[in-house]
Amino acid sequence: MNLITILGLVAASLTTGSFLPQAIKAIKTKHTKDLSLGMYSVLTSGIVLWLIYGILVNDIPIIASNCVTLVFTSAILFLKLRYK
Amino acid sequence: MNLITILGLVAASLTTGSFLPQAIKAIKTKHTKDLSLGMYSVLTSGIVLWLIYGILVNDIPIIASNCVTLVFTSAILFLKLRYK
Repeated sequence: MNLITILGLVAASLTTGSFLPQAIKAIKTKHTKDLSLGMYSVLTSGIVLWLIYGILVNDIPIIASNCVTLVFTSAILFLKLRYK
Repeated sequence: MNLITILGLVAASLTTGSFLPQAIKAIKTKHTKDLSLGMYSVLTSGIVLWLIYGILVNDIPIIASNCVTLVFTSAILFLKLRYK
């Protein structure tokens, strides 16, 4: 694996994992007023489309990273709807 | 352009554009307490790495979408630091 591929994997891990602290914060505080419902609706829809795209082009990194991100953003969307 | 490519472009537009309503909300309300500083720090760092990756592999869609996303997430990070 070359350095550029490693850079791409680090980038993917950061953008995917970044949603975890937001989910944890929303669970802990039970406050989501400042979160944008529009953002999490559009983002979650976009990630579902990325997942379908990844399945259709049979790209494992796209499938894997969007599966994980979908769990986090769906959780945040659920918390936003619950604690709005 | 085939249907799968169009699906990918729609997915990219949604995930990129999703951050705009959050930036607008933060500008309007001047409240960012519920936003996770950890999320926007890690996400913005990840997007910078995606941008470098896109430049190194000379992939225009990666460069373009991450340039736009970087503007939005940097703005949200700035607003989070300003109105914390």
